[in-house]
Amino acid sequence: MIDLRRHNSNFCVEHFLRFCRDQVERTIAEFEMFSKTDRLLVAVSGGKDSLAIWDLLLETGYRVDGLYVGLGIGEYSESSGVYARSFASSRSATLIEVDLPGEYGYDIPGGAKAARRAPCSACGLTKRHLFDAAAVDGGYDALVTGHNLDDEAAVLFGNTMKWQTEYLARQAPVLEARAGFPRKAKPLVRLSEREMAAYCILRGIDYIVDECPMAAGNRHLGYKEVLNDLEARSPGAKADFYFNFLRSAARHFTISDTGDAAGLGHCERCGAPASGEVCAFCRLVERAGGSQPVRLSSTRRGSAA
Amino acid sequence: MIDLRRHNSNFCVEHFLRFCRDQVERTIAEFEMFSKTDRLLVAVSGGKDSLAIWDLLLETGYRVDGLYVGLGIGEYSESSGVYARSFASSRSATLIEVDLPGEYGYDIPGGAKAARRAPCSACGLTKRHLFDAAAVDGGYDALVTGHNLDDEAAVLFGNTMKWQTEYLARQAPVLEARAGFPRKAKPLVRLSEREMAAYCILRGIDYIVDECPMAAGNRHLGYKEVLNDLEARSPGAKADFYFNFLRSAARHFTISDTGDAAGLGHCERCGAPASGEVCAFCRLVERAGGSQPVRLSSTRRGSAA
Repeated sequence: MIDLRRHNSNFCVEHFLRFCRDQVERTIAEFEMFSKTDRLLVAVSGGKDSLAIWDLLLETGYRVDGLYVGLGIGEYSESSGVYARSFASSRSATLIEVDLPGEYGYDIPGGAKAARRAPCSACGLTKRHLFDAAAVDGGYDALVTGHNLDDEAAVLFGNTMKWQTEYLARQAPVLEARAGFPRKAKPLVRLSEREMAAYCILRGIDYIVDECPMAAGNRHLGYKEVLNDLEARSPGAKADFYFNFLRSAARHFTISDTGDAAGLGHCERCGAPASGEVCAFCRLVERAGGSQPVRLSSTRRGSAA
Repeated sequence: MIDLRRHNSNFCVEHFLRFCRDQVERTIAEFEMFSKTDRLLVAVSGGKDSLAIWDLLLETGYRVDGLYVGLGIGEYSESSGVYARSFASSRSATLIEVDLPGEYGYDIPGGAKAARRAPCSACGLTKRHLFDAAAVDGGYDALVTGHNLDDEAAVLFGNTMKWQTEYLARQAPVLEARAGFPRKAKPLVRLSEREMAAYCILRGIDYIVDECPMAAGNRHLGYKEVLNDLEARSPGAKADFYFNFLRSAARHFTISDTGDAAGLGHCERCGAPASGEVCAFCRLVERAGGSQPVRLSSTRRGSAA
């Protein structure tokens, strides 16, 4: 029996799996994320969330490939790659791989240090760029990520605690494609971290259980602890916080033109959208001591022209 | 030495007291709360915050009387009344007293039970009504309350966690007078709970240290704990949360006409603003088994006519 306090329910295995599928289908429909004819690319880390959403989308008949980025974070990256490849081959699914040290000449621990950026910041920038580029270059209709309710509530919480209104305006389960950026969708926002762990265990999906060693003690994990504390005091508080925001408050915050795609040009090195001559990713690559591979550069410049 | 981590400062006694006065003067000026010619009424509980703001306003030359409401919460109310009276007589200041059991025929523990309301809800409704009525009937220019930064941040946090946009629109350190309601001001919003306790100790002000016994475990105190947790992880987070809201987010939420003074009539029993024939306070009095004293009723109906 799986006990979901937030829903005041107990499920047997079969109904729990159906519950997860229903929540995902409901989210895809409610936010008009994508359809079964679309070609989807899911960003795969080897953790429970990304493997679960890949599995859920394959199970329910979507056309979905995976993308794995090897970040060069020692043993952690090696193991997570093994889980991603193993899942893909068990489902005969297509997994695209990008190897950061091999193709760009830097890894996250060393590159962040050389560029004097916090590791999570350098990693986020790197992944966003590579995911976006792969989705656009591959002609996918949407980039799917495995962000769950806990992730999204924690990001919303952090942005709310600082009242970062520009970020609050972008806090949606689906973002439309803009010049050079793919459509982005988060079909797991109705499901919690704990539910995703249970899903993987019940489906026999092996995933990397450890948190990334570079993330220990970061602010995002602190916000998750605070939200878990609130959830324990008042079950359902986390989902109410996130969904009441979407329902009642999100419309109060609008994306201004500042920094929006309207005013963006193209990076002269890689062709990605950029506010200056060189995009933030290419500046990071340079400061991290790496270099831009010729392949991606020419492809994106070509597609942007 | 008093160590204020949030301000990254240490103060000696003299400069700490000056710091408190400066913060209050700055708040009064910034939010245009009131002037030295105004007649002010401060709501006094006998706790540190209300006695501190009364003291700070008297010290800096404001014309300010106190109002104490005896709520009939056993030993707690008896002690708090003694502290309020003792402070008033030590400053030769005017203290108006309202005795809820004596004048309205109910106390908070029994009345809340009889009316089937949570004690904090019945108490809040009672105090708001009696404070408003006393300020309006007494012709005061503003009602001052001792809400400090911790109080206001906790209220904002609760309203934000539920995204209660109507309440978010009213979250300001000063509210203008509206038909039947007095102007309301909170000059302590730049000072914390801990700072107010230090202020009272250094000024030799005796106050009731215990929390109200009926409030134990309420949600508001839970929000304070969560905010203290965030503050410990990141000093200044609490003030940033509150003041960034006022600066960047408050303008996104506007007071709608629903339930606003525009559509309010007068309670047929006490003359206070009411959306129906009888105001929420008079309904509580009735359900709590009490009765409206003739004095207040006739006064307010007169002033509202």
